[in-house]
Amino acid sequence: MSTYGEYVEEIEKSLRLVAGTVRRRGRVLLRSYDITSPQFDALIVLNNEGELTIGELSSKLYLAYSTTTDLVDRLERAGYVARQRDHLDRRVVRVQLREAGVNVIESVLVARRAYLDSVLENVDIESRKNILHSLDLLLMNMGNR
Amino acid sequence: MSTYGEYVEEIEKSLRLVAGTVRRRGRVLLRSYDITSPQFDALIVLNNEGELTIGELSSKLYLAYSTTTDLVDRLERAGYVARQRDHLDRRVVRVQLREAGVNVIESVLVARRAYLDSVLENVDIESRKNILHSLDLLLMNMGNR
Repeated sequence: MSTYGEYVEEIEKSLRLVAGTVRRRGRVLLRSYDITSPQFDALIVLNNEGELTIGELSSKLYLAYSTTTDLVDRLERAGYVARQRDHLDRRVVRVQLREAGVNVIESVLVARRAYLDSVLENVDIESRKNILHSLDLLLMNMGNR
Repeated sequence: MSTYGEYVEEIEKSLRLVAGTVRRRGRVLLRSYDITSPQFDALIVLNNEGELTIGELSSKLYLAYSTTTDLVDRLERAGYVARQRDHLDRRVVRVQLREAGVNVIESVLVARRAYLDSVLENVDIESRKNILHSLDLLLMNMGNR
């Protein structure tokens, strides 16, 4: 007897394999920009959310404050982000995505789309719709967990 | 006009958001074991493939040889893997998963299943079947890319 609901274990396994494959593929490209997956995640979060403090960024990435500080240091040295002091409260420092950081994101997304385009080559439109619907159903239910 | 096939951009985006959410969730747990996502990926690969040389492991993880060496050093110090010399050719060293490493994998999988169980709480069985089928269709087509 499983302790989980129907298909939970199977969905977890397939999702882990799909996500793992896409992630490992993406690493090849990230290496050419000399950044790690968590650093790339940080760029994505800054791109979606705008400027964030280190504290806000660390909680969005589920990383420790000190780990996030190191990560931002490296991204700043590489020219992908910049630290900005708040105009009104000079004690507050926010991390801002720079143009070079946006370019990294764009290149990685272009490569991922090209990869998925080749993966989906032999998948018909109805099946593509089903894949999208399934992923969005997961996303929707992940929203409030 | 998109340069990609139908729904490719939408599927890439939804897949990235789903995978990102699961990955960030998983990090909280990995932190309690003091390991990073690539280190966890290495444990998973060793669990699936058995003993591997550093070269084999680095190519399966799409990581540089030197990065993989560092990663194995840290996993070895933590007691999750061990380096083993080949009995016939003493120059060949293989990385072996230890029981503590298997325990980390088990705990993380249990947590992921519990998370997905709660995510799928309000999703009916037909939709669960569709999700699984969609993921498996992606996996099947990823196999030869």
